[in-house]
Amino acid sequence: MPFDPAPIGRHHALLTEFRRAFKAGDAAAPLVAVEGPRLIAEAIRSGLRIEKALFSRTGLEHHGDKLLPQFSKHTTTAVADDASFAATMDVEHPQGVAALVALPRPELAQAFGPDAAVPLLVVAAGLQDPGNLGTLIRAADAFGATGVIALADTVSPFNPKAVRASAGSLFHLPVVAKVAAANLIAACRQRGVRLLATAARGDEAALASLDQPTCLLIGQEAGGVPRELLRAADATLAIPMVRPVESLNAGVAGAILLYEAARQRRISVA
Amino acid sequence: MPFDPAPIGRHHALLTEFRRAFKAGDAAAPLVAVEGPRLIAEAIRSGLRIEKALFSRTGLEHHGDKLLPQFSKHTTTAVADDASFAATMDVEHPQGVAALVALPRPELAQAFGPDAAVPLLVVAAGLQDPGNLGTLIRAADAFGATGVIALADTVSPFNPKAVRASAGSLFHLPVVAKVAAANLIAACRQRGVRLLATAARGDEAALASLDQPTCLLIGQEAGGVPRELLRAADATLAIPMVRPVESLNAGVAGAILLYEAARQRRISVA
Repeated sequence: MPFDPAPIGRHHALLTEFRRAFKAGDAAAPLVAVEGPRLIAEAIRSGLRIEKALFSRTGLEHHGDKLLPQFSKHTTTAVADDASFAATMDVEHPQGVAALVALPRPELAQAFGPDAAVPLLVVAAGLQDPGNLGTLIRAADAFGATGVIALADTVSPFNPKAVRASAGSLFHLPVVAKVAAANLIAACRQRGVRLLATAARGDEAALASLDQPTCLLIGQEAGGVPRELLRAADATLAIPMVRPVESLNAGVAGAILLYEAARQRRISVA
Repeated sequence: MPFDPAPIGRHHALLTEFRRAFKAGDAAAPLVAVEGPRLIAEAIRSGLRIEKALFSRTGLEHHGDKLLPQFSKHTTTAVADDASFAATMDVEHPQGVAALVALPRPELAQAFGPDAAVPLLVVAAGLQDPGNLGTLIRAADAFGATGVIALADTVSPFNPKAVRASAGSLFHLPVVAKVAAANLIAACRQRGVRLLATAARGDEAALASLDQPTCLLIGQEAGGVPRELLRAADATLAIPMVRPVESLNAGVAGAILLYEAARQRRISVA
């Protein structure tokens, strides 16, 4: 869509829309706010549609030539002066371009992967830090998880800070938000997928069984996996430590367990 | 030392000293700034001396009874009104008590562990994010590293944000700051410790040899391990991924490799 390179006014409806999207990070919102040229390019490479794009004046100079040709004719594009642009998003170092992206909202079933896959789901159960959730999504992508679940009382994976921390991994794999614990438990039982809860003390055999169909429950930073899920879990598992520290952060702990799952699956395939 | 519970003025020299300590996080500063009752209690448990302590009025009410008896008679203690206290430190949610702690500054040799230990050093080579460095120190503690090195051009491990992210692990193991790369290389050669650099592509045999005396080089978030060290390294190693993502953050990547080292060492001992 040809666009007007004259900056829009600071009360323009598009700025309001971007401001809301960056503030909310609402799991139910239809569009996800994405900031920076690399993340936007990654969204395009992943086949997602850029619905709306906003450049700062400086951002247009730096990134316009590269990004504009990649937008579809349906993309609404506008330019704002640098100050209005920066005020629109809750970001320390604005990179001069932002976009609202239509992200597919997969069904829970898709997180179990295609029929041929051995399911490896990672479940954020109560995480409140969007950076930790983004780290977890990134590790899930790297280590071949079939999907990521964010339970109902968990920070939204579509929170702009989680999107940024996931560094594009959110675009690559099924991420399902606001799942009710009971639905997750039922879906795992039905498919013969073991529910393994991370805890301070764990079952060594469970840790050694990550090559089996697995649903890994990662608890919130302070309180661990919620009791309802602990009760439903088939086993608990802990990361063996030489000098036990109180707890690794949820993103790091999840990344280590996903690495371990990939290691076992690689060995069991070879 | 008996202390005056009347709040000190907001221009008091002690406030200035705390403000500087929280701002600087200078690797050469003799005292490290620590915030919050848990971290301070952990420092005391680790046998460190609390040189100076500062409560907010509210903080004194909440934490005074528990912490005051743990201070030595050499601790200088004061109370500030809540606003002055909060203005003193660069923290989002001040917890009402802060301390300046005398941390031992170990020699490089101590990072190789006692004679009986198989050295496992983790080297922050250029990391700029104090949170990532703190995460790395925490993982080094959890997975039995003998020491942590921060090279000269790396964020200080005594930066208050790194101290917080390390959640007390900084107090448990030798952390050596501002080490020159040439000195590290020489010390490893002399002791027969292999220098392994993390990189995008790695040597599988190197990854499988972490039960040997090892010095793990973790590069900065964007640029990886500096060239000088890459050239000196005995091998490079990479974390195998199912779907290669551009890079995991340095704290997460380091934590995974330390976990893998602990796993191999556990197996080789058993």
